[in-house]
Amino acid sequence: MKLLSIESSAKAASVALTEDGRLVSQFFQASALTHSRTLLKMAEDMLSDLEMTVSDLDAVAVSIGPGSFTGIRIGVATAKGLCWGGDKPCIGVSTLEAMAHQLRDRENVIIAACMDARRGEVYNACFSPMGDRVERLCEDRAIPISQLIDEAKKTGKTYFFVGDGAELCYNAFLELALPALLAPEPLRLQTAWGVAMAAGGRQPEDASDLAPRYLRLSQAERERLQRLAK
Amino acid sequence: MKLLSIESSAKAASVALTEDGRLVSQFFQASALTHSRTLLKMAEDMLSDLEMTVSDLDAVAVSIGPGSFTGIRIGVATAKGLCWGGDKPCIGVSTLEAMAHQLRDRENVIIAACMDARRGEVYNACFSPMGDRVERLCEDRAIPISQLIDEAKKTGKTYFFVGDGAELCYNAFLELALPALLAPEPLRLQTAWGVAMAAGGRQPEDASDLAPRYLRLSQAERERLQRLAK
Repeated sequence: MKLLSIESSAKAASVALTEDGRLVSQFFQASALTHSRTLLKMAEDMLSDLEMTVSDLDAVAVSIGPGSFTGIRIGVATAKGLCWGGDKPCIGVSTLEAMAHQLRDRENVIIAACMDARRGEVYNACFSPMGDRVERLCEDRAIPISQLIDEAKKTGKTYFFVGDGAELCYNAFLELALPALLAPEPLRLQTAWGVAMAAGGRQPEDASDLAPRYLRLSQAERERLQRLAK
Repeated sequence: MKLLSIESSAKAASVALTEDGRLVSQFFQASALTHSRTLLKMAEDMLSDLEMTVSDLDAVAVSIGPGSFTGIRIGVATAKGLCWGGDKPCIGVSTLEAMAHQLRDRENVIIAACMDARRGEVYNACFSPMGDRVERLCEDRAIPISQLIDEAKKTGKTYFFVGDGAELCYNAFLELALPALLAPEPLRLQTAWGVAMAAGGRQPEDASDLAPRYLRLSQAERERLQRLAK
């Protein structure tokens, strides 16, 4: 299966082309440019440099959140556009699960996928590495770092942090002398290759059913509810 | 320093842009297309998608071998062309050292960078991972796998294999029950990001001094010498 994968849930953006799970190409960018300008162009350039078009694809995979509201909307909209234009099915995967796959070959650790959710919280999910897959230990959630610390004290395990909130959590763990590791560049930030791994083996669905999964309300929605409550 | 790095020493090709060591973009391709068609186009697309041109670069880094004769020639020629056209200096790095950097965060292992050199041999060099750098344990060389096995028996260490010859060596080690690990995708094949790490801290030089380092004679040269010897 030829799968185009898309990742734009935070500051970095990337696209990947896999064939039956093998990485054929990946184009990654962590610049100050906005995803709305770069993401589709990167996908077009990658396919063109492979002498391929959207019609050669079997499906499109995309990370649907949690993450930056704007970033996820751009990623999901790009995936829907490509699927609609090329009549292709789609696979939506958790941003956190996708980045956990980047560390699935490690041993004797808990993979803690963390994104900075601001307001003192992280988007987090924890996984056990299983070689060629990961085992999910909890649902995607928005929690204070203190909760992650409490859980780590109970398990006694080394936490291996990945994601744009990895350094934040890693430093908090080090201050308390809790065993922690930080994913090395270029595996620390989410990648389309992670999305491709997380999508592996899943059945593609109709792209019209694809929807972002934000975990909490946007700032505009929160402020509106506060106004209504007054 | 804005550094464009180039890797085309084997079947995969990649380009990366780093700024003071931070990965800003990487474009990787492991397709059946020839590097002479893809490599320069990938560099142009990556820079253009970053809204940059060659004039924005401070230097170009490239892996100069060992590896595929044709692949290295294409990489070095591309680097020289970009440097000459843009009046930029160049940094040439060992292909084996570049890929060893991709595993420099690992602990308690010997990183064995291996490329399939055919004729029962591998291009190899071994390194100790030191976190943010690697320590070289031997020069780049072309050796039979049996020599690597003899060395591993003496050290008693776990060998962590990387490169397009990694699986070959890993399987040979497993057959003898020697402790061995195989670098996970997408760190197994050489990347321009590895070239950028290996180039880190080195002083760029005049691109006209840049030359491939093949370690042994090409097939055409060997056959010519055989004819002359008769």
